[in-house]
Amino acid sequence: MNTANTGKKTKVGIINVTGYAGVELARLLSRHPAVELVSVSGRSAAGQRLADVFPYLASIDLAITPEVESVDFAFSALPHKESAPIVAGLIGRGVKVVDISADYRLRDAALYPQWYGFTHPAPELLGEAVYGLPELYRKEIAAARLVANPGCYPTSVILGLAPLLKAGVIGDHVIIDSKSGISGAGRSLSLGTHYSEVNEDVTAYALKGHRHLSEIEQELARFGGRPAVTFVPHLIPMTRGILSTIYAPLKAAAPDLEALYRDFYQDEPFVRIAKEPPHTKHTWGSNMCLIYPAVDSRTGRVVVLSAIDNLVKGAAGQAVQNMNLMLGLAETTGLEAVAVYP
Amino acid sequence: MNTANTGKKTKVGIINVTGYAGVELARLLSRHPAVELVSVSGRSAAGQRLADVFPYLASIDLAITPEVESVDFAFSALPHKESAPIVAGLIGRGVKVVDISADYRLRDAALYPQWYGFTHPAPELLGEAVYGLPELYRKEIAAARLVANPGCYPTSVILGLAPLLKAGVIGDHVIIDSKSGISGAGRSLSLGTHYSEVNEDVTAYALKGHRHLSEIEQELARFGGRPAVTFVPHLIPMTRGILSTIYAPLKAAAPDLEALYRDFYQDEPFVRIAKEPPHTKHTWGSNMCLIYPAVDSRTGRVVVLSAIDNLVKGAAGQAVQNMNLMLGLAETTGLEAVAVYP
Amino acid sequence: MNTANTGKKTKVGIINVTGYAGVELARLLSRHPAVELVSVSGRSAAGQRLADVFPYLASIDLAITPEVESVDFAFSALPHKESAPIVAGLIGRGVKVVDISADYRLRDAALYPQWYGFTHPAPELLGEAVYGLPELYRKEIAAARLVANPGCYPTSVILGLAPLLKAGVIGDHVIIDSKSGISGAGRSLSLGTHYSEVNEDVTAYALKGHRHLSEIEQELARFGGRPAVTFVPHLIPMTRGILSTIYAPLKAAAPDLEALYRDFYQDEPFVRIAKEPPHTKHTWGSNMCLIYPAVDSRTGRVVVLSAIDNLVKGAAGQAVQNMNLMLGLAETTGLEAVAVYP
Amino acid sequence: MNTANTGKKTKVGIINVTGYAGVELARLLSRHPAVELVSVSGRSAAGQRLADVFPYLASIDLAITPEVESVDFAFSALPHKESAPIVAGLIGRGVKVVDISADYRLRDAALYPQWYGFTHPAPELLGEAVYGLPELYRKEIAAARLVANPGCYPTSVILGLAPLLKAGVIGDHVIIDSKSGISGAGRSLSLGTHYSEVNEDVTAYALKGHRHLSEIEQELARFGGRPAVTFVPHLIPMTRGILSTIYAPLKAAAPDLEALYRDFYQDEPFVRIAKEPPHTKHTWGSNMCLIYPAVDSRTGRVVVLSAIDNLVKGAAGQAVQNMNLMLGLAETTGLEAVAVYP
Repeated sequence: MNTANTGKKTKVGIINVTGYAGVELARLLSRHPAVELVSVSGRSAAGQRLADVFPYLASIDLAITPEVESVDFAFSALPHKESAPIVAGLIGRGVKVVDISADYRLRDAALYPQWYGFTHPAPELLGEAVYGLPELYRKEIAAARLVANPGCYPTSVILGLAPLLKAGVIGDHVIIDSKSGISGAGRSLSLGTHYSEVNEDVTAYALKGHRHLSEIEQELARFGGRPAVTFVPHLIPMTRGILSTIYAPLKAAAPDLEALYRDFYQDEPFVRIAKEPPHTKHTWGSNMCLIYPAVDSRTGRVVVLSAIDNLVKGAAGQAVQNMNLMLGLAETTGLEAVAVYP
Repeated sequence: MNTANTGKKTKVGIINVTGYAGVELARLLSRHPAVELVSVSGRSAAGQRLADVFPYLASIDLAITPEVESVDFAFSALPHKESAPIVAGLIGRGVKVVDISADYRLRDAALYPQWYGFTHPAPELLGEAVYGLPELYRKEIAAARLVANPGCYPTSVILGLAPLLKAGVIGDHVIIDSKSGISGAGRSLSLGTHYSEVNEDVTAYALKGHRHLSEIEQELARFGGRPAVTFVPHLIPMTRGILSTIYAPLKAAAPDLEALYRDFYQDEPFVRIAKEPPHTKHTWGSNMCLIYPAVDSRTGRVVVLSAIDNLVKGAAGQAVQNMNLMLGLAETTGLEAVAVYP
Repeated sequence: MNTANTGKKTKVGIINVTGYAGVELARLLSRHPAVELVSVSGRSAAGQRLADVFPYLASIDLAITPEVESVDFAFSALPHKESAPIVAGLIGRGVKVVDISADYRLRDAALYPQWYGFTHPAPELLGEAVYGLPELYRKEIAAARLVANPGCYPTSVILGLAPLLKAGVIGDHVIIDSKSGISGAGRSLSLGTHYSEVNEDVTAYALKGHRHLSEIEQELARFGGRPAVTFVPHLIPMTRGILSTIYAPLKAAAPDLEALYRDFYQDEPFVRIAKEPPHTKHTWGSNMCLIYPAVDSRTGRVVVLSAIDNLVKGAAGQAVQNMNLMLGLAETTGLEAVAVYP
Repeated sequence: MNTANTGKKTKVGIINVTGYAGVELARLLSRHPAVELVSVSGRSAAGQRLADVFPYLASIDLAITPEVESVDFAFSALPHKESAPIVAGLIGRGVKVVDISADYRLRDAALYPQWYGFTHPAPELLGEAVYGLPELYRKEIAAARLVANPGCYPTSVILGLAPLLKAGVIGDHVIIDSKSGISGAGRSLSLGTHYSEVNEDVTAYALKGHRHLSEIEQELARFGGRPAVTFVPHLIPMTRGILSTIYAPLKAAAPDLEALYRDFYQDEPFVRIAKEPPHTKHTWGSNMCLIYPAVDSRTGRVVVLSAIDNLVKGAAGQAVQNMNLMLGLAETTGLEAVAVYP
């Protein structure tokens, strides 16, 4: 199945192609030189041609089927709870999977009832699944058969905080104020994504605790300690992009933050340390994460800005990056596109 | 000059009408029942009819003149540094003034070189000028001849924090993450307000210290203590509105925040304690400030959301509210409009 | 019931307050000095306080009831087909009505099955109902007990074409290319109003014939002749506003269009002949219609631009204007607000 | 210089890289497999690294120089009038050029003073230059050393009308109502591209005759006849995209339009006949033109919708398509990207 060696293209499929993560996967995979997109599934749209539902994907000649068929590798873009049993079945049949849902992100099965309201149907796989953030788990991902693709907010947050946590330079209280474009809320209809309601508006939500907090806490704990994290997501009137503004107290005199970050991410193809506060627009359609660390010397706090495209590095792009690692391909294959600006 | 008693309308003027705060004043004053807008000044537009530059103001039949003329009361919408001497001159001639610029907001003249890069030309007036936040300084405003209208960010922040500070329930470290629509950056051209650059984008700015921090610190200190404030403003792709998300540690067990806020603002016509996280859209075109306090019980922090229209409660509306107080009028006169939604 | 003479406020109600036309009526009526909003009805929201569903309307202390109660005057903001019988019942009970739906706009009952898919339940009222465009039917409206409020597109189109048709200067083929903000599609959820689908997008729709074409044809015929009208509406990514660009061949040498239009609309409070191509932004929240006629001398065609706020002059504002006429009030009462710019 | 045969990459340069067409060229060329971007020039930004001005282009390691250097092939993204002499010089030195400006689009030198306000400095090249619309001039482009890249509006319009004109089925009066995103107005600052002015707004402009009308007329005349064209461009609040709505009278009974269009464009890689009215969003970042022809049977008119990304098929993408032809490369090289949706 290692396409790098044989030249034969791995057959891949997308489960639930009709959401925004699903069609973004289709866009990226349609031009991927080392895999072949052979099957896409959907529920309400089953039976239609992909190009009839999404005319811009006319170059992909596939019907939407109820289940993915004849694949060696699958991406699940199902909603949480629905994904877990489907993914478990695929793994049981020897298909490698990147699950874009949250269903294999948390290692502790007991957290699922608390955060997601269901009992996990395949807890035995939680220990095996690898959290798909290549910058932290590259080696484990390459060896995995099941990778849990991180949430969009956590991707921006964990990449923004990892160098500080590893260096041990910040104290225990972290504030994360994230601003997301509306596509993060998905393609399902709701008043909260109705154009006239969200255009020209900003609001905070999930003040009681957003589900992504559970994986943020899990991954930050990896560096030792258990920082108390306050996380408030906001919806702002744009389609794509997340900017997370992260505040933390410095333990001692400010280190050379730029050097710290450049060192930590020096060989990373998809993380760039910005010289100025980054614009989410500079990530539009690309797999880049732009990070800018700064010190508020008046108060002894560090402020980190972390920007991604929520549908690429925050979802489909990172999923392809994980697939590349799992298939022994060059990690950047099919992800070289520069952001579409302006 | 007290129009409430005589029935005679006070003659008012707007200095530098051609910026967004200036034209917003013209909009509000054009329908104000107790004052008469008799003069508007501008620089590059001097000589033109107001309605030729701003066709939607066709109902106001005034020429733009180099200086305001024959007024009893003036609003200065000049840029900082330019406003100070003009305002001092008007005060010297017995004209009451609301200065929308920052030039009389800081009581300590030494702060002007540091934050605004100029030496204040009329420091003797700084002690007399009243900071124009009616919810805190109503009585002083009513007696003042010079009122310094607060900045847009500080209005949202100070109103959001005042009940907590007065009650003495929060610790010393406050994080303020503000999101502003683009009109806050004014009508002057810059790449940072060029449509294709800011549309579909969010970015932070002024990480070295935004000028509004100086007045935020001054006013928070009024409640005793000197909280260490980190303030990071962001520009988001909408025209009007500011949402400030404020984070602070609780000293002890969480008080009944809703009761605390309702009590503090119980008679205020322009502050409403929201039952849900507020939308800036619900303030569009109105003088309301919507505040929502919440506790993050996992971490013992309070999170306060404060939403305003930056051009109304954050500028022109608050200026009219101050004028009403200074003229002995009912505070809400001319400001009764409900937000324009959606 | 004539409030102008008695000083007693007419009691008014809004049927189906929860759509965008309904809440816009509530906004306008809440500040109307001569009527009292006493009742608002809704279906799914019945039983809730108006301010709980729409927090920005907190100043209106009303519960949403299944039916409007104890009113002398009613606005129906029901969907077409549902409105007709309710309105007929109100008229039967002596309540004057402005119907914002399409149910009494067409004089020929036979058009309802064709354009709206239902047989009209009260055809006897179609002859009595007055088409509520005050600029054309002021006198009839003042005497009516039932006024059919025009559609948003027809308002912009008919006002744009009336002077040309009355003067008899254009030929028989008219092209109307209209651009509407998304609020025109209402508050009901659909993929076509889902933020991420319509943001950063423009598309045409209803190429087989938009329902508003029926009333456009009916009203243009009033001037004699039956111009062949091609009407293509477009949705563009903004919340409010319609710009109609109207193209027609000139019969002879171009007349002085500006004089023609200024003469036709010389005493109209809500129509302004613009000196430059108008911006919909200059009508935001106001009841103004801005019209700009121009000649394409290369081809002998006239191009007319007509801009309104679709929810004000295109719906709720015009409805209040009609109510004012029906109640013998000054026509501009409660509608004096200047546009909210920028 | 034919890279298809030698495997050696052609060295290409971009003149005036700092406008939106220039940076879009840089984006596309940076991933083009058969050419090497070796030089980029700019004026005010000369001396800076490209990545310092445009951080998202960090993968391109080039300095901005006053002139392009050591290139075999050049793109000029200079403003009109400035481009003509520079391009003439390059041609004189044996460098093939695609000129994105208007300076070589018009074959008749006498039109330049009239439409562009300058006398053409190299009229001898006007006869040689090929209008760079591959769907009409593929063969001539392949043989050319100078290609004049079409304007954004004309691209959408000419592709929309060509099948009708070739078939001779429409009459002499054509109406073109185009809607463009704001990036079409460029990166230079102006009040007309200031965010708060154009957001939530639509307006028409250039009613006296937009410059693009000259090339539209020139190219339509190619099919015989001289249709009288009325062209009204509009700016709508989005960054990218043009939708042209084209109206024309049918000479006789309506032909099978879909068949006519599918036949005309049957082998075209970058034109797709849509099954539904197209969305500009479905072209975002891609080189596709989506066309939808329809008949208004009530009036005997044809309505054609034509959608492109103004910066790709309307500028930089089409320029690369032309370059591919001029270099003997596969026409789609480097242009395979699917639109970025949503």
